[in-house]
Amino acid sequence: MKRHVAIIGCGHVGADVAFSLVTQNLADHISLFDINAAKAASEQLELQDMAALIGSRVHIDNNDASQLAADIVVMAVGPSKTQTVDRLRELDETAKAASMWVPKMLAAGFSGVLINITNPCDVITTLLAKQLELPAGQVFGTGTSLDSARMKRVVGTLLDVDPASIEGYVMGEHGESQFVAWSSVRVGGLPLTQWPQAAHADYDAMATAIRRGGWDVLTGKGWTSFGIATATAKLVDAVFSDARRVFAVSAMDSQLGVHIGQPAVVGASGIIHPIAIPLAADEQAKYQASAAVIRQAMHKIG
Amino acid sequence: MKRHVAIIGCGHVGADVAFSLVTQNLADHISLFDINAAKAASEQLELQDMAALIGSRVHIDNNDASQLAADIVVMAVGPSKTQTVDRLRELDETAKAASMWVPKMLAAGFSGVLINITNPCDVITTLLAKQLELPAGQVFGTGTSLDSARMKRVVGTLLDVDPASIEGYVMGEHGESQFVAWSSVRVGGLPLTQWPQAAHADYDAMATAIRRGGWDVLTGKGWTSFGIATATAKLVDAVFSDARRVFAVSAMDSQLGVHIGQPAVVGASGIIHPIAIPLAADEQAKYQASAAVIRQAMHKIG
Amino acid sequence: MKRHVAIIGCGHVGADVAFSLVTQNLADHISLFDINAAKAASEQLELQDMAALIGSRVHIDNNDASQLAADIVVMAVGPSKTQTVDRLRELDETAKAASMWVPKMLAAGFSGVLINITNPCDVITTLLAKQLELPAGQVFGTGTSLDSARMKRVVGTLLDVDPASIEGYVMGEHGESQFVAWSSVRVGGLPLTQWPQAAHADYDAMATAIRRGGWDVLTGKGWTSFGIATATAKLVDAVFSDARRVFAVSAMDSQLGVHIGQPAVVGASGIIHPIAIPLAADEQAKYQASAAVIRQAMHKIG
Amino acid sequence: MKRHVAIIGCGHVGADVAFSLVTQNLADHISLFDINAAKAASEQLELQDMAALIGSRVHIDNNDASQLAADIVVMAVGPSKTQTVDRLRELDETAKAASMWVPKMLAAGFSGVLINITNPCDVITTLLAKQLELPAGQVFGTGTSLDSARMKRVVGTLLDVDPASIEGYVMGEHGESQFVAWSSVRVGGLPLTQWPQAAHADYDAMATAIRRGGWDVLTGKGWTSFGIATATAKLVDAVFSDARRVFAVSAMDSQLGVHIGQPAVVGASGIIHPIAIPLAADEQAKYQASAAVIRQAMHKIG
Repeated sequence: MKRHVAIIGCGHVGADVAFSLVTQNLADHISLFDINAAKAASEQLELQDMAALIGSRVHIDNNDASQLAADIVVMAVGPSKTQTVDRLRELDETAKAASMWVPKMLAAGFSGVLINITNPCDVITTLLAKQLELPAGQVFGTGTSLDSARMKRVVGTLLDVDPASIEGYVMGEHGESQFVAWSSVRVGGLPLTQWPQAAHADYDAMATAIRRGGWDVLTGKGWTSFGIATATAKLVDAVFSDARRVFAVSAMDSQLGVHIGQPAVVGASGIIHPIAIPLAADEQAKYQASAAVIRQAMHKIG
Repeated sequence: MKRHVAIIGCGHVGADVAFSLVTQNLADHISLFDINAAKAASEQLELQDMAALIGSRVHIDNNDASQLAADIVVMAVGPSKTQTVDRLRELDETAKAASMWVPKMLAAGFSGVLINITNPCDVITTLLAKQLELPAGQVFGTGTSLDSARMKRVVGTLLDVDPASIEGYVMGEHGESQFVAWSSVRVGGLPLTQWPQAAHADYDAMATAIRRGGWDVLTGKGWTSFGIATATAKLVDAVFSDARRVFAVSAMDSQLGVHIGQPAVVGASGIIHPIAIPLAADEQAKYQASAAVIRQAMHKIG
Repeated sequence: MKRHVAIIGCGHVGADVAFSLVTQNLADHISLFDINAAKAASEQLELQDMAALIGSRVHIDNNDASQLAADIVVMAVGPSKTQTVDRLRELDETAKAASMWVPKMLAAGFSGVLINITNPCDVITTLLAKQLELPAGQVFGTGTSLDSARMKRVVGTLLDVDPASIEGYVMGEHGESQFVAWSSVRVGGLPLTQWPQAAHADYDAMATAIRRGGWDVLTGKGWTSFGIATATAKLVDAVFSDARRVFAVSAMDSQLGVHIGQPAVVGASGIIHPIAIPLAADEQAKYQASAAVIRQAMHKIG
Repeated sequence: MKRHVAIIGCGHVGADVAFSLVTQNLADHISLFDINAAKAASEQLELQDMAALIGSRVHIDNNDASQLAADIVVMAVGPSKTQTVDRLRELDETAKAASMWVPKMLAAGFSGVLINITNPCDVITTLLAKQLELPAGQVFGTGTSLDSARMKRVVGTLLDVDPASIEGYVMGEHGESQFVAWSSVRVGGLPLTQWPQAAHADYDAMATAIRRGGWDVLTGKGWTSFGIATATAKLVDAVFSDARRVFAVSAMDSQLGVHIGQPAVVGASGIIHPIAIPLAADEQAKYQASAAVIRQAMHKIG
């Protein structure tokens, strides 16, 4: 009955994923991994301190390879330096940093769900899915889940409506080639375009604000973590509760041959199935173009 | 800084609203009212016992008329006997039972938000709004919020998808003349009708299951309370947090002159504004017909 | 990874236990049982409605005997009529009503933890433990957990301090022969007797208010359920999370041969071990006397 | 009805306090302040992203001095460099960094509760209390609250019991001169010394592990934040809910003339009153000695 999550990478993102899971009581056992053993040990101690404070009975351990046989593995290794503006540039380094854990996961007998955060998210997710050779759907990435939340924040601010009442997706690469599927955006059931306040909205400016949201955070703070950690916690919860809830995640598009941000039903076995929502012609073109960017990066790492 | 809710009527519904508010920590001060003083006092004691168990510091009092100046009043008086199949039949009795509290509320200086549960919900809400003479929007009813949740449960079961990923509304009277606005129902952004599993669905049978959901519960249990209490707790939260979140509630339709179930933005001042979603022609006709039922009942109590 | 709870008896108590588990997200699968099949079916429907409202993905079924092989069974059958003032008078009826489920549990292969609420709690718990023949500790009762919460409420009101900062226990029978172990009561680490406000407190009056708390609720409301349901939800959580948290519960006192209210560590296998706190001489005498009352009742049912 | 918290300092600690408040829904309005304006702006954006994800409607702004008139101000400014092993060494720098906000708070009309985290915690709290000239109790520090949680973690591990069932305090300076008041430590109501597993425990080693817990975290991670942020969130909650809950915090000891870690009742106006728990003679001596260390540091900054 134990919900067991392994988190690989204890940088800001991995640590804040653990922090979110403990605070929201979404896991019973968390196994931390980092190539810097002291860092993983420190995070364990810090999380145990806070667990004692909030009455959580989560069990935490660190860098014990046998624990890679967890129900869910969250891949959160990062580049050694601060991220640059184009996530694809980090590719070589993070591809190696993530891949090095695959043999260890296989050796431990991992057969669960892998949720990948490591950037470039769609490329690394596609890569890990190939290496792990698990049933389709068990490997997916956080993709455009956070970008979709940013879209809801931006639209919610425009209309003075709760983001929770806004539907719709940012799709494509979790990177520069992503796009807002404006045709999917509905607020309280009414298409965004039919809201009076949206009549004179600058859609391009909004899309830019959404796409560059992460970099705006990075500029002042030096890293991003709260948003992606919160998004990941929601995905972990969806898997453990077999929620069959819809998220914009990096899921395999079997026609395009890559993992790419799209709406999909998430449950106990990971991606249950994607949802092929109708896209406008220009959105469809952007989606294809974004897939091409991901495919190109895949070729680069051979 | 205290979130103060008064609950009028300590039957199953009112008591379970209080139970939900305490369990979910959605109020700092709850004032209970019932014409049976011993009942209100007992509920206070029972709620204080459970507050002690979960570490809640909510303050609870009972039958102190000055506390009707709460931020939110939840009207939950019921008929003296078990409900019959047609909520409109209860009208005479509950109209009097609810109205008798209006002078007390006015005397206490109530100027907050009134959320009405008492059935027939739309009629009583329209009546209380007239009697209280508060700014438009400050009086509304739970309306078809619970019916909409039932629709999501039924559709979610059909598609094996989380109800939380389903959009759409049951509209009209919270009663026999209600209807599912099927054209508004989308699952993960895809219209219900485009889901393969919906191709051969019996929409009439689903609508009947939704409409009669409350009676099915009533038959076996003798009353209904968990669903409506949970729905009400969400509305209370939306008002206190000024959520500007969209719910199907009984809001004034100024063209039709009655409160009726429709999507609306709910925030600190109650109904911020309804959302005029596009309806199919047959849905529009059903909406008008349902409004006529409510209007007719209003004339009856003249 | 599914936390599976079966609840036997869908009266106010059993239903509110289910309501609490769903609202607080403490179970993934709830199986309802009642000799009135329609009642169990109605509760299932009502709980599914509320789950749809709060985004819970709990699975609920009813009266499927194979589901008695749950991780935790909560016994909540009640007497057919309203409780009388002395819980022991209900004994014959409830002993039969609870025992009839034992063969069904054994047939289903139940080997989990049974938490008994059915009154007289200590007697029925002792009886069920004998009948189930499970390892010691896997059968225990809610005992004086709610009474202890009431003590904290009463003392907290006296001192104007949060009940959460009060330690101490009501011990003995969950009934008329219970007693407050005043020597165990500390507030913020300071013995109650050393608080200035306690200098002239009427300890007997407080003990009476605590002991009769349930009857005070019953008088006005007709039944009690919120408090005991909340207490039970905490115990369910402690078992599922292997919390090894201390509660006053009805645990076997091996020297006295009966289950009786006392502090004990609760974890995955039920009672991990009781805690033999030091008692004053008069408290020790009351404890022995209370055990005698339970033993006597056991003899009565042979 | 808005719970308004201002957080001064957006380093790891201040940011994680905000993260905790949003995740746990403990504030309606958060105002961020940092001498690095870009940093505060970035944190605002990141927190708004996560709020959109979890359905929180918290309002967040940054570096608007008028918002220093919040209900609660959390002082979380840090030293410019990594902390050294002795928190008192940071004194000169952090005393200036914290004090520079006092005139701004006074100008904004602040009359609420100040919770100080900035180290050396007891000295800075004493200093800010003098400068703000608010009624006694409205200025207090997180003190030994986190140290007390660490004690419960260490003792809980020794006995295999939930830290939530452990009572007792670390007292004195939140620094090197702190001490565990072992005479106050009870587990499930039984004094620690009476637990069999404690018979051969190394109390000095445990005290060292507790005292150096923060530095152990710091060594591997480079900073500490989850624990102190979680402790602070609990204090914020206690103030907003007028919990009158007992915490080990840095409260004024009027006989000793300094703020120092001790148990105290925390409610709407901050410290309601300290609790003078009985201490063993050696503990009393350590308490006096620790107060002397704080007093000496106060003299140093004149």
